[in-house]
Amino acid sequence: MRLTEIGAPLTLAQIPFPVAEVGKTIVMLKCAALNRRDYWMQQGLYPGIALPGTPGSDGAGIAGGREVVINPGLSWGNSERFQGAEFTILGMPVDGTLAEQVVVPIQNVFEKPSHLSFEEAAALPLAGVTIYRALFIQGEAQPGESILITGIGGGVALMAMQFALAHGMKVCVTSGDDNKLTRAQSIGAAGMANYHDPDWAKSLTTQFGGFDLILDSAGGEGFSQLQRLVKPGGRIIVYGGTQGKIQNLSPQILYWRQMTIRGSTMGSRKDFIEMLAFVNTHRLRPVIDSVFALEDTNAALEKLRDSSQFGKVVIKIAS
Amino acid sequence: MRLTEIGAPLTLAQIPFPVAEVGKTIVMLKCAALNRRDYWMQQGLYPGIALPGTPGSDGAGIAGGREVVINPGLSWGNSERFQGAEFTILGMPVDGTLAEQVVVPIQNVFEKPSHLSFEEAAALPLAGVTIYRALFIQGEAQPGESILITGIGGGVALMAMQFALAHGMKVCVTSGDDNKLTRAQSIGAAGMANYHDPDWAKSLTTQFGGFDLILDSAGGEGFSQLQRLVKPGGRIIVYGGTQGKIQNLSPQILYWRQMTIRGSTMGSRKDFIEMLAFVNTHRLRPVIDSVFALEDTNAALEKLRDSSQFGKVVIKIAS
Repeated sequence: MRLTEIGAPLTLAQIPFPVAEVGKTIVMLKCAALNRRDYWMQQGLYPGIALPGTPGSDGAGIAGGREVVINPGLSWGNSERFQGAEFTILGMPVDGTLAEQVVVPIQNVFEKPSHLSFEEAAALPLAGVTIYRALFIQGEAQPGESILITGIGGGVALMAMQFALAHGMKVCVTSGDDNKLTRAQSIGAAGMANYHDPDWAKSLTTQFGGFDLILDSAGGEGFSQLQRLVKPGGRIIVYGGTQGKIQNLSPQILYWRQMTIRGSTMGSRKDFIEMLAFVNTHRLRPVIDSVFALEDTNAALEKLRDSSQFGKVVIKIAS
Repeated sequence: MRLTEIGAPLTLAQIPFPVAEVGKTIVMLKCAALNRRDYWMQQGLYPGIALPGTPGSDGAGIAGGREVVINPGLSWGNSERFQGAEFTILGMPVDGTLAEQVVVPIQNVFEKPSHLSFEEAAALPLAGVTIYRALFIQGEAQPGESILITGIGGGVALMAMQFALAHGMKVCVTSGDDNKLTRAQSIGAAGMANYHDPDWAKSLTTQFGGFDLILDSAGGEGFSQLQRLVKPGGRIIVYGGTQGKIQNLSPQILYWRQMTIRGSTMGSRKDFIEMLAFVNTHRLRPVIDSVFALEDTNAALEKLRDSSQFGKVVIKIAS
């Protein structure tokens, strides 16, 4: 599926077969999965859009006769602490996974976890590496700690919940949708709050007395309430900012509680390898909201626009 | 000197000789030093004020025939990561060092660094442990890194500069006072900016291209400019908040630069011991702004009110 014009639907197009240069390989895709990034690119709200181009960062398929999953991070750089200036993600400017074939560096291809279907494997890469880094590298999550995951329902937040539960943490979640809260509870959330309830923060404090770790991708006006929920020595990891600038942060709470606010985005090759090992060890399966055919990608993108999904939206490309 | 009424000058008073319970000792004070905390307590702007009481957290003197310096931190608690609920600082609610004698736990008394006078030793404890923790424990400062220290001139920020220089860091400073900037340069600052200059941040970026570490005790509206000066993987350590709530913090900069904002206040017994070793190794001498007699403490407190000092304000108690 090609993006040829900002704001227009993606279109199915026949393009020349890709050629793999030295050090690269072709993956025959079985499934791809959507990320909010794909929606933002279509809307022209993401840097580095090259038109026409093929979006799609997540994919699983066959390469060299093996069942594989793709690490979408390209040219992370030399430091584990941050990505270098050359870092990009598969799916713009380089053509991505919403296609029958994709060319990627050989080192970005990994054996598909054997307990996962191609649908599940395609749902894993970008959300998985993002959450692995946010939770374990930047967040230094420890078994037994309490964690609050805001905005449960999207594929990334749900994967955070699964990873945290597998790591032996006590997980609470927030959402603006009671139905999503109930579903999160059925997966293992110990506590929850609807952030449309004006007393949501107080209610969580009463139940849990504060959190060692909070994962947030919203920011905005509500962030200062999250700050008050952090235990002494606790951390808030910020991996997105859909609600805009953070306001009214208290320096006094920051220093008196010796707390940390740290950003995290995507992850290194090392993070990706560790994430795959973690998923294999705990036999985790990404939650899939729905599966669309490649030619129905535009309908799939609408689910992301509405944030109505619970789990990852997968695109089936070949059987 | 006793604080008997909020907002009133301290008064010299004869009080009963203190008695040291088991596990405690009496220090015959030679010198004390003031901290902003002492000023705030007099103004009624600090929690836990017990009247009448003797302020003063910093002190050096004689105990058991030895020349000693006092660790002002009481009952830090079990975790190195944060202070426990019992943590207090010498000088309210417990009587402090603006007196001829003070009672402290035996474990809070340490040998005075031999290269320091009593004036210098008294200037060291609270600023020293605060900066040691902010810089090395919370800030993970590394030799060769660039650091920006805001609000240079106060005893704590100046000590931060001395510690950072001794650690082999490249130090830049800000102040609203050109005279303080010039004096900081003479001590070793590689770059400086007057924050009343509207282009101060741009000027530092042009000269230094960003900082690995920023130490700030202001917060407030200006903090969002500090965020833009942080290199990828960099940290801002917040150890005060004189300018109030932090506004307009960008989540996008937080996560894209994988940056950390972390609070730090005072320090543990371990931090204090390491700080003393660092000061001994590098033979550091706290910068002293002025020395007042005990009966002139109120005049000394006015220096803190006006923020006109450059270095620590010391109180001489006995020769």
